[in-house]
Amino acid sequence: MPQLSPLAPAAFPAMPAVAGVRFAATACGIKPGVASDLLLVDLVPGTTVAGVLTRSLTASPPVHWCRRALAGGRARGLVVNSGNANAFTGPAGTAAVETTAAEAARLMGCAAEEVFVASTGVIGEPLPTERIVAALPGLAGALAPGDWEAAARAIMTTDTYPKGAAARAAIDGLPVAVAGIAKGSGMIAPDMATMLAFLFTDAALPADVLEDLLGAAVDRSFHCITVDGDTSTSDTVLLFATGAGEGHAEPAAADDPRLEGLRAALESVCLDLAQQVVRDGEGAQKFVAIAVSGAATDAAARRIGLAVANSPLVKTAIAGSDANWGRIVMAVGKAGEAIDPERLTIGVGGVRITEAGGRADGYDEAPVAVHMAGRDIEIAIDVGVGEGSATVWTCDLTHGYIDINADYRT
Amino acid sequence: MPQLSPLAPAAFPAMPAVAGVRFAATACGIKPGVASDLLLVDLVPGTTVAGVLTRSLTASPPVHWCRRALAGGRARGLVVNSGNANAFTGPAGTAAVETTAAEAARLMGCAAEEVFVASTGVIGEPLPTERIVAALPGLAGALAPGDWEAAARAIMTTDTYPKGAAARAAIDGLPVAVAGIAKGSGMIAPDMATMLAFLFTDAALPADVLEDLLGAAVDRSFHCITVDGDTSTSDTVLLFATGAGEGHAEPAAADDPRLEGLRAALESVCLDLAQQVVRDGEGAQKFVAIAVSGAATDAAARRIGLAVANSPLVKTAIAGSDANWGRIVMAVGKAGEAIDPERLTIGVGGVRITEAGGRADGYDEAPVAVHMAGRDIEIAIDVGVGEGSATVWTCDLTHGYIDINADYRT
Repeated sequence: MPQLSPLAPAAFPAMPAVAGVRFAATACGIKPGVASDLLLVDLVPGTTVAGVLTRSLTASPPVHWCRRALAGGRARGLVVNSGNANAFTGPAGTAAVETTAAEAARLMGCAAEEVFVASTGVIGEPLPTERIVAALPGLAGALAPGDWEAAARAIMTTDTYPKGAAARAAIDGLPVAVAGIAKGSGMIAPDMATMLAFLFTDAALPADVLEDLLGAAVDRSFHCITVDGDTSTSDTVLLFATGAGEGHAEPAAADDPRLEGLRAALESVCLDLAQQVVRDGEGAQKFVAIAVSGAATDAAARRIGLAVANSPLVKTAIAGSDANWGRIVMAVGKAGEAIDPERLTIGVGGVRITEAGGRADGYDEAPVAVHMAGRDIEIAIDVGVGEGSATVWTCDLTHGYIDINADYRT
Repeated sequence: MPQLSPLAPAAFPAMPAVAGVRFAATACGIKPGVASDLLLVDLVPGTTVAGVLTRSLTASPPVHWCRRALAGGRARGLVVNSGNANAFTGPAGTAAVETTAAEAARLMGCAAEEVFVASTGVIGEPLPTERIVAALPGLAGALAPGDWEAAARAIMTTDTYPKGAAARAAIDGLPVAVAGIAKGSGMIAPDMATMLAFLFTDAALPADVLEDLLGAAVDRSFHCITVDGDTSTSDTVLLFATGAGEGHAEPAAADDPRLEGLRAALESVCLDLAQQVVRDGEGAQKFVAIAVSGAATDAAARRIGLAVANSPLVKTAIAGSDANWGRIVMAVGKAGEAIDPERLTIGVGGVRITEAGGRADGYDEAPVAVHMAGRDIEIAIDVGVGEGSATVWTCDLTHGYIDINADYRT
């Protein structure tokens, strides 16, 4: 068990039960020892679902399963195992998903296509499906609302802490809850998608509305983080809406103004979880926010931010508390997006370092060095060509990352 | 001074003088202490030149200078300093290049536009041009052919050994020589260009023919290596042809079949230098060759190979001698190029690991583990959709990389 990230929250947050959502977790023997590695979630009949899945061309069988199941827009269950990604496992991997979904569906009295499946862990190892099937009846008998921390623990791999977040909003003056859990620490490069995150609300929403809400929230949260630039085969974000809350009238369209509060709540939960993933980045010692402005478009700003966030030279300089801003210049230059070098400005910790295509007159590195020595690093970049902006979040690249990943399987 | 790379060649190679090329190097005080940091090369009148420069959008003033000077196709001199990249240095940086070129031109009796300038080292620090100007007359008085090792040492930054390579060919049965030096260790991601490399031949060739020859050679050498995926502001490859050799008739076109031998010699020198850069990759403990076949095009194969070569998770697994081939699957999947997962095959050290979209029947990790424990790692990937192929070279990602880069400036 790696040491707890120094950037971890003080405690798992207090989170409300979400009406219509019950779960149970156990150790079924995929991970070594007694570590929890299997989560079953039961969703009340009528639950709708939307998802964002990895764009990897070597996506895992569970990802393919979820992509097909999302077409139905309905969910009754979710099975997640950790310790094995069931990725690049051939026809046996596909059969494993089908068997898992079928067994969960039998226990819950629903169609297999209403059961969502996700797996995370080592790629390429056969999944011991029989252990999952053997454990599911016990889980089905133990379903209960509310223990989010146990659910979050069951989906961890190299994570050093369980990740949860919740928020409240209202529709028609009636309260709705949003809660979610996530896992992720390495293989995090969400320009395509993200790690695993499961979000739940008791609001009543058609699947197409849910899809719009989720897409917008993911775009400003999970899609704006990176740990190592490596995109997982298994990235899955699912949002379930049980409609088991306080009985507001169902909004029919995504642009319904009554959804404003829920949109904000969902985005805050996604952003909280995404930042928790970065704060648990493998080996992370510092949390880095990179705000890019003045780009041609918001998408261009995000690509520039991610080029900086993924640069090993920027990340190692941050690890060394070194205000080596020349590497930020380098990374901005390699992003391939339009910039004006003569107007490019870089600030760190609120101190403007460059102006007019060079170092600012009278630049004093002392306050920047103090900022760089801290845990939370703020970098602001304006590339001087337009109105596009984005903020991305990452962590530093340390000896810990190499320790964790040089012998992950041993 | 970092420890010599364990992948270093046994010794600097024996290299012939190239007729028409003389040089001198010294320590002018840009690097601390007595380390050599300034190289002057004198080229005989009539020398032609071609170059490949970084595509960085924050390219340095010397890169901009070279780009303009290349339009003339003629060269009489080259000035290279190490220890300071003269990048993102504003109008003062441009003036520094102009002053340097003008002073060298005065000493050599040529136009400033016939003097090429390159700088490598820290980004964003003002270049102490006066030290270069003060040292140039002494260098101009000390010009001599042949001491390639001294020339290669003068352009080093974090390199742990000087890099040189040479080859011979013939045109019309008359011998021609090709020799080159390079520097590079970090900030190496040559999908765009490369570090610094200077190549010399005594063949007589028009500049446009030279450009064609160089483009082809770079495409299969410097463009196929990566250390850390970070592209320098200063990448410069220049090829000079003095025409001072044994008097063959000048080929008028790049497709002249008499150039076949020279093409091969130039490619072998470029490949040798490129592989030396990888073998001196910051912190490198292992040299990795990744051969990709079955891609839609050669360019697609190279992009897939570079996605694998740049993956921090693949590189750390190699550092740990861990045959974690699932990460290769991941990296192939994130490359965004067409693949057929069902036909994707991965081999390591000559052992086929995957087939039919999963682990090969009877796969025995033992011989792969032995291979992974060595210094030279061979990875073969076939993505099963076409005839495109490419080989790329990289190194592992180790604690040494972080040690070097977390406090580069201190």
